[in-house]
Amino acid sequence: MSTGKRIVIALGGNAILQPGQAGSFAEQLANVQVTADQIADLVAAGHTVIVTHGNGPQVGAILIQQEAGRAQVPAMPLDACGAQSQGLIGYMLQQCLGKSLRTRGIERPVATIVTQAVVNPDDPAFQHPTKPVGPFYNEDWAKQRMASTDERWIEDAGRGWRRVVASPNPQRIVEAQAVARLVETGAIVIVNGGGGIPVIEKDGDFVGVEAVIDKDLGAERVAHDVRAEVLMILTDVPRAAINYRTPQQRELDRVSLAEVEKYQQEGHFKAGSMGPKVEACRRFVANGGETAIIASLTQAVEAIAGRAGTHITR
Amino acid sequence: MSTGKRIVIALGGNAILQPGQAGSFAEQLANVQVTADQIADLVAAGHTVIVTHGNGPQVGAILIQQEAGRAQVPAMPLDACGAQSQGLIGYMLQQCLGKSLRTRGIERPVATIVTQAVVNPDDPAFQHPTKPVGPFYNEDWAKQRMASTDERWIEDAGRGWRRVVASPNPQRIVEAQAVARLVETGAIVIVNGGGGIPVIEKDGDFVGVEAVIDKDLGAERVAHDVRAEVLMILTDVPRAAINYRTPQQRELDRVSLAEVEKYQQEGHFKAGSMGPKVEACRRFVANGGETAIIASLTQAVEAIAGRAGTHITR
Repeated sequence: MSTGKRIVIALGGNAILQPGQAGSFAEQLANVQVTADQIADLVAAGHTVIVTHGNGPQVGAILIQQEAGRAQVPAMPLDACGAQSQGLIGYMLQQCLGKSLRTRGIERPVATIVTQAVVNPDDPAFQHPTKPVGPFYNEDWAKQRMASTDERWIEDAGRGWRRVVASPNPQRIVEAQAVARLVETGAIVIVNGGGGIPVIEKDGDFVGVEAVIDKDLGAERVAHDVRAEVLMILTDVPRAAINYRTPQQRELDRVSLAEVEKYQQEGHFKAGSMGPKVEACRRFVANGGETAIIASLTQAVEAIAGRAGTHITR
Repeated sequence: MSTGKRIVIALGGNAILQPGQAGSFAEQLANVQVTADQIADLVAAGHTVIVTHGNGPQVGAILIQQEAGRAQVPAMPLDACGAQSQGLIGYMLQQCLGKSLRTRGIERPVATIVTQAVVNPDDPAFQHPTKPVGPFYNEDWAKQRMASTDERWIEDAGRGWRRVVASPNPQRIVEAQAVARLVETGAIVIVNGGGGIPVIEKDGDFVGVEAVIDKDLGAERVAHDVRAEVLMILTDVPRAAINYRTPQQRELDRVSLAEVEKYQQEGHFKAGSMGPKVEACRRFVANGGETAIIASLTQAVEAIAGRAGTHITR
């Protein structure tokens, strides 16, 4: 087993909230504790770990609360809601990771850094917003919002109307230098939650935009910017697969960059699901990263040791 | 002028939200930009700056939103709301400080660390909750909450009922080591917003509690834990005063620890206002800090140069 890798871990939604759960703080904290144990095992095995995570359900809840309270207090824009979710989830991860590490006799600082990710204002995604955010509303509500704001809403047959925002490509992490420096000191750093707070650069300054960055593509930028050797995407399936859910389904064990690109062109990986995970891995390796791994949340230690997950290398 | 001090700055509420403002994101960001310019001037003068801030209005808004959305999504406990506010305010400060620094030709990382502060579960404050949080409600609501939860509510004659929580003493900052290390790398670090997320220690682990730590007393702990030379509390008055709002009012310029303690015993400083600021300064100097300063937000640079504010030394 190779030790001492610098690993960026991207946690999927199930690391924080399980399907069907209402989302109380206690429920989320219990899930995060299980996740933290996995991460602490990687630290105990000698690895340097940087953690990033999704925030879909948490921002969804914050958006519902913003709307419900709109008559009393101003609703915050989506980028500010993302910042709130980074604080919330970072707090849970800090508390749980601290506990998991102490249980293993490890005393290491754990810290969350609030993180902005730069996107290109000319990203074509801004012309075609596709990422649904927040709950479903009725047609009247949606049309009133479209008339009074520049929000876009789409109808989801049978379920109602939902706001859609752009999902632009992350270009770089604004706080990358601070993150890298803190990692160097031996801290376990939690960063870029929800793919990062999306900002555009304007005359050298950063301005928030209402968009959602894919968390795995964001994780690739983190991994690149902190010069990680491994990008590990933890999800609810053991491996990426081709011919998924057909009689010819085949789980991928070890694949090269060229094979991945071929499978992508053949359309094996579903948009919004395995698609961005594989694309994040492809980019990481294409940009010089050593290994990208897609594995089950419960097999992180097995995966880094090469005994589980899909491993993508050059 | 002395240069190169390590300064912990505690920002008052008016640094983020002015009285009478509704609290839109744009309003808050505009205020934070003005504040950030002051801080950047201190950095430009060669000082190392660590920033902490209040979060009263922001947590107040989050609590209103939590209540308004309670039928749809679970409300988060107060500690989690505090974590959300750290993300939100940290994001605004990062964006604005980055801009203020670039304007001055300074390229330095700016990063917010989500911060927990340890309190003692046996702190007498838990027996006598006095700190009002969130909005006013009617009597029925308050009595129903008291019957169904362990919340305490008090009546404010004429204005309705309001929840009160304990305001325990902060003992230490959980993330102090990470903060100190990041500061050492040259980053400008934003920490311990709202006095820190209050946690108690339980068998070596940390558990969140529903309480509110005074942000100035929290700032003192930050200043102590990162070995700052100066604690600077920025507020909306130019100096602390004795005989405040009487014909004998006298603004304090330079005072010794002994004088401060005498004035405290004589009851010159109002609880919930100048009281905790003076107490934070007293503790800082008593604990070995070089200088504690109370000054107007608009006079930070003048104050560190000794030309404004109340300066407390041993």
